[in-house]
Amino acid sequence: MNMKMFGSDNDSGVHEKILEAICNCNVEHANPYGNDIYTENAIAKFKEVFGEKADVFFVPNGTGANVIGLSSMLKPFEGVVCVESAHINVDECGAFERFTGSKLLKVPSKNGKIKIEDIEKTLSAVGNEHRVQPKVISISQISEYGTVYTVDEIRELADFAHKNGLLLHVDGARISNAAVALGVTFKEMITDTGVDVLSFGGTKNGMMYGEAIVSFNAESTKNLKYARKQGMQLISKMRYISAQFLAFFEDDLWAKNAKQANDMTKLLYNAVKDIEGINIVASVDANIIMATIPKEWIEPLQKKTFFYVLDEKRNLVRWVMSYDTLESEVNDFIDEIKKVSGK
Amino acid sequence: MNMKMFGSDNDSGVHEKILEAICNCNVEHANPYGNDIYTENAIAKFKEVFGEKADVFFVPNGTGANVIGLSSMLKPFEGVVCVESAHINVDECGAFERFTGSKLLKVPSKNGKIKIEDIEKTLSAVGNEHRVQPKVISISQISEYGTVYTVDEIRELADFAHKNGLLLHVDGARISNAAVALGVTFKEMITDTGVDVLSFGGTKNGMMYGEAIVSFNAESTKNLKYARKQGMQLISKMRYISAQFLAFFEDDLWAKNAKQANDMTKLLYNAVKDIEGINIVASVDANIIMATIPKEWIEPLQKKTFFYVLDEKRNLVRWVMSYDTLESEVNDFIDEIKKVSGK
Amino acid sequence: MNMKMFGSDNDSGVHEKILEAICNCNVEHANPYGNDIYTENAIAKFKEVFGEKADVFFVPNGTGANVIGLSSMLKPFEGVVCVESAHINVDECGAFERFTGSKLLKVPSKNGKIKIEDIEKTLSAVGNEHRVQPKVISISQISEYGTVYTVDEIRELADFAHKNGLLLHVDGARISNAAVALGVTFKEMITDTGVDVLSFGGTKNGMMYGEAIVSFNAESTKNLKYARKQGMQLISKMRYISAQFLAFFEDDLWAKNAKQANDMTKLLYNAVKDIEGINIVASVDANIIMATIPKEWIEPLQKKTFFYVLDEKRNLVRWVMSYDTLESEVNDFIDEIKKVSGK
Amino acid sequence: MNMKMFGSDNDSGVHEKILEAICNCNVEHANPYGNDIYTENAIAKFKEVFGEKADVFFVPNGTGANVIGLSSMLKPFEGVVCVESAHINVDECGAFERFTGSKLLKVPSKNGKIKIEDIEKTLSAVGNEHRVQPKVISISQISEYGTVYTVDEIRELADFAHKNGLLLHVDGARISNAAVALGVTFKEMITDTGVDVLSFGGTKNGMMYGEAIVSFNAESTKNLKYARKQGMQLISKMRYISAQFLAFFEDDLWAKNAKQANDMTKLLYNAVKDIEGINIVASVDANIIMATIPKEWIEPLQKKTFFYVLDEKRNLVRWVMSYDTLESEVNDFIDEIKKVSGK
Repeated sequence: MNMKMFGSDNDSGVHEKILEAICNCNVEHANPYGNDIYTENAIAKFKEVFGEKADVFFVPNGTGANVIGLSSMLKPFEGVVCVESAHINVDECGAFERFTGSKLLKVPSKNGKIKIEDIEKTLSAVGNEHRVQPKVISISQISEYGTVYTVDEIRELADFAHKNGLLLHVDGARISNAAVALGVTFKEMITDTGVDVLSFGGTKNGMMYGEAIVSFNAESTKNLKYARKQGMQLISKMRYISAQFLAFFEDDLWAKNAKQANDMTKLLYNAVKDIEGINIVASVDANIIMATIPKEWIEPLQKKTFFYVLDEKRNLVRWVMSYDTLESEVNDFIDEIKKVSGK
Repeated sequence: MNMKMFGSDNDSGVHEKILEAICNCNVEHANPYGNDIYTENAIAKFKEVFGEKADVFFVPNGTGANVIGLSSMLKPFEGVVCVESAHINVDECGAFERFTGSKLLKVPSKNGKIKIEDIEKTLSAVGNEHRVQPKVISISQISEYGTVYTVDEIRELADFAHKNGLLLHVDGARISNAAVALGVTFKEMITDTGVDVLSFGGTKNGMMYGEAIVSFNAESTKNLKYARKQGMQLISKMRYISAQFLAFFEDDLWAKNAKQANDMTKLLYNAVKDIEGINIVASVDANIIMATIPKEWIEPLQKKTFFYVLDEKRNLVRWVMSYDTLESEVNDFIDEIKKVSGK
Repeated sequence: MNMKMFGSDNDSGVHEKILEAICNCNVEHANPYGNDIYTENAIAKFKEVFGEKADVFFVPNGTGANVIGLSSMLKPFEGVVCVESAHINVDECGAFERFTGSKLLKVPSKNGKIKIEDIEKTLSAVGNEHRVQPKVISISQISEYGTVYTVDEIRELADFAHKNGLLLHVDGARISNAAVALGVTFKEMITDTGVDVLSFGGTKNGMMYGEAIVSFNAESTKNLKYARKQGMQLISKMRYISAQFLAFFEDDLWAKNAKQANDMTKLLYNAVKDIEGINIVASVDANIIMATIPKEWIEPLQKKTFFYVLDEKRNLVRWVMSYDTLESEVNDFIDEIKKVSGK
Repeated sequence: MNMKMFGSDNDSGVHEKILEAICNCNVEHANPYGNDIYTENAIAKFKEVFGEKADVFFVPNGTGANVIGLSSMLKPFEGVVCVESAHINVDECGAFERFTGSKLLKVPSKNGKIKIEDIEKTLSAVGNEHRVQPKVISISQISEYGTVYTVDEIRELADFAHKNGLLLHVDGARISNAAVALGVTFKEMITDTGVDVLSFGGTKNGMMYGEAIVSFNAESTKNLKYARKQGMQLISKMRYISAQFLAFFEDDLWAKNAKQANDMTKLLYNAVKDIEGINIVASVDANIIMATIPKEWIEPLQKKTFFYVLDEKRNLVRWVMSYDTLESEVNDFIDEIKKVSGK
């Protein structure tokens, strides 16, 4: 019986090596709240990966990583410029607004990527006391539409931000998929481009729970120590997150996992992109396919392998591959698509 | 090499049966955010334990459980009456104030337990628009001083609360230790006394991460669904918390764990309570001993087994036993105390 | 020397009868915070105007009236559906988000008026814990574009709201201008249509400072008593606001004031609407004209009488008439327009 | 008929010269939100009084001045050390907590004045991520008990604050009474001692509405511009506050007003301090007397001249004199005291 789904990459379980690392650290007592050797080592690993300037704060989940990370860069009258479809805007039940008291300054986007010309328009508010002051640009890498910013695009955004007194935040819930897609290191993508604060995702790439706020901004780092606790994101038995991250980086497990998800996505994409009735709505750069399909296909396909319909009116569906998605599972789905499409 | 500590019961690792349950649920995909069979079963288990009226929301940590639980009962101009030493007041970095925008109305206490006469004084603010309106009484069971409210005391607080238009919240980070100490069921202690919302602790009694907000109040329940997500406490791979709770209740593992911690505390208490120089400052009802000891004893004792000094001026120390504290470890510590005390 | 401006109706001073009322109440001592005879009488007057069901809370300014009023209807995970151009969204520096911790759910609008079909779309979030829950519809009467909702349109919005478990809020900063434009009483426009909470504007129609939150919702009323104080909007020497409102309603001063502003707007509108180069962008229903004009006209016209350019790219200008705008002043401005337009 | 009261100095009306100034500025149009000549002049006057370093933001009321002023110095995980009896703690309905999301770190006090040794104790939290970080010391000058800090005491507090990385805030709702009591200028008391942010009170000393946030801290000043608007404290027709402040400083009207209140307080104090049954509980330094009196005196005395009973159990009463309190009124009250006391 096949229980695999294309709903989200958090449908998947925990990679066996990560589970093993959890079990192996379950020895004796350890100081809580991150004052343990596993956390020390995991932080050292992050500094190895991102460079010495990186300061790291582990948190249990992605909404926490985003909101606490953003809060460290903001005063309450300062806002975050992001696209309408951003996870922080759509899918976090107003966590950002409640915790920061601030405002998301939303700009339109067709493929989930922000355009500098749209950010520029928000700058007309600068200095006007009646308006929330733009302070941070937040992008999702990969975006909610599955598209990936190139390294040059991120650098351009960081440069634009810094020239205008803004900071750059990256929601990297699926950052491993982006790194693999671009064929670059995390350091090349994030540190070297000038990103200020990053939400580094673990859960969607084979971990049980655990994300990391990575700060390259000294002022944010000072705030994060307290903001994490005040934001209810400081876990007492921290070693169990840290041990996961150690396994995550060991032998580039993160890259192998992400590659599998991306490869399976490419397999599906190539097989279905030219099928009449399927309209791929955004560039398939990593492990997400966004497409509109005929309404009558949805039910039989969902029965085969579950996925979400994001917009009932447009029949916009999303197919997400995980680190554990198998070629045979994708092929089964392709067969089903061919069946419903009558090809 | 002995790494056990008396610092806190979150120094300990994960009970083997709970770890086993985690490993066993790591099969295939599951719907995220609690829409899985493990969570369904765990919630059913909670209803079995607390009665059908109980609504349950799993969260990763205790600060989250407390703050989200309290927020579900409050408008921002309504406050929470608690003792000065309450965890929500002292040890959560203002998480309550930041998330709720409300105020803690603190009353004094010598042993961590609240007195109705002190709550009564706060009621003079009722109806006065210049004052935060008392709305919730929050107690810790067991308290931060290691004392335990009797079932009658909890019922009296609940009755007083309800007669005065207030609600009763229990921070049950160590609720298992209280139930074992009192020899009652959770239902007798919480449901039948009239508690409105409970933070049910798992982490300090052998779990890896995971607490439960248990609501007996229909209005709170409606709020909790959204407040948990807005409060960054909704975990995507929820099954790994739920599986832990299933093991926690299986064969009363929770009770065995708590009993061991309580018994070891009693062992230590009985051995040291009459030693000259040691002054036990609050009734030792469960798994915490609060005592003042001669300053010069602290260093050698901490070398033997680590513990916290809560007040440097008074040399107030706290010894906390865990589910995995061994008799031999306690005896070693007793020996050390006898040595430093010259007995 | 002419100092009159078309910038906003808060450029104007205080109507002489209102100033007189302020001076006349400056006698002896009075209990603060609204416990005085002037406030008692002013509240009675509001009940006479809006019906007995109306509960009234005076505050010093319009942002306060909007934010406190909205807060009384919301939990922090509930949001407010409004148009992009709403004052609460654009011109209050995020006061709503900071005080309520909630989110504005914005929908597009070309003329400042909200469409039910757009509100309907936001309802897809209902019951989804990842989304802010729509709870209040907020409209501006008159809108930021100078358009006016008919009584039927307001009733339709209220009915739609109540059918869907929502509430209706009206930002009535310029509500007098709307009532005069429609030729209806406040009661017909607000009470009888089913509005839940209203920000009733005084300042822009001849008062010095002072607005009223008018609540028709018993739950909101209970909250408002405390929310006003917690929101820093409770004025100690309240009688000076109350006395103004008494004069405002005396002999329908409010209507005379609003009529003058509306009439002057109509005078200007009729004179310029057909001039080539002027494009009126929204129906001119009350005391605001929104128009695009040739860029080179702006400077000479502003020199004659100051006004704001709302969008530099489109040369979108706003002309607002006040209760004290004179026919001669409008005619002078018309002459200037004719001059710059070469007519 | 005598309507004067000893309830609070905000029972009083508006000084005739201030009312006159309001009337005189009611000419033509003026740019709103403080962009007018009256505001320009009033700010210049404040700079003359406090020194060029002072930045000034007018707001309508005292709670607004305190909360917005404090917010400009704080991150949400930073707290304010103040005495239990502080107005911001007791009488502002949690406005501080709601707007800042932060915490008041309260220390005990018998006479309303804070002691450095008590502040010192709160510093043990510094660097501990589980605790709110002390950042601002807030004092009330005059205090809620009517006591006055000497210039040396303020300087000592400022020095202590700055040496420990803290800032000093003064709630100066009755600062004029303090300056007159000490016989010093505002500059000597505030600027020269090193105060960082001051709430400068107008309303309780003869104004209709209007307080000033005076900032000597560049970072606070940057924040205040936006925080005032976001805090709903930016008044559109600002000129009517500014004109009041101009009259307030003209010919030292503020000092004459405060002197009258202080003198009347001294008159009452000297007449009653030795009467058996009256126990003055704090040094009578300015215009407030705090005393316990026999329960049976309260009703007849309140009938003569209204005042508040602050603590029903102790029969603690407060008598506050205003700028317009007359010698004859005080003498009448003294006569009544003598009557009820049987002297």
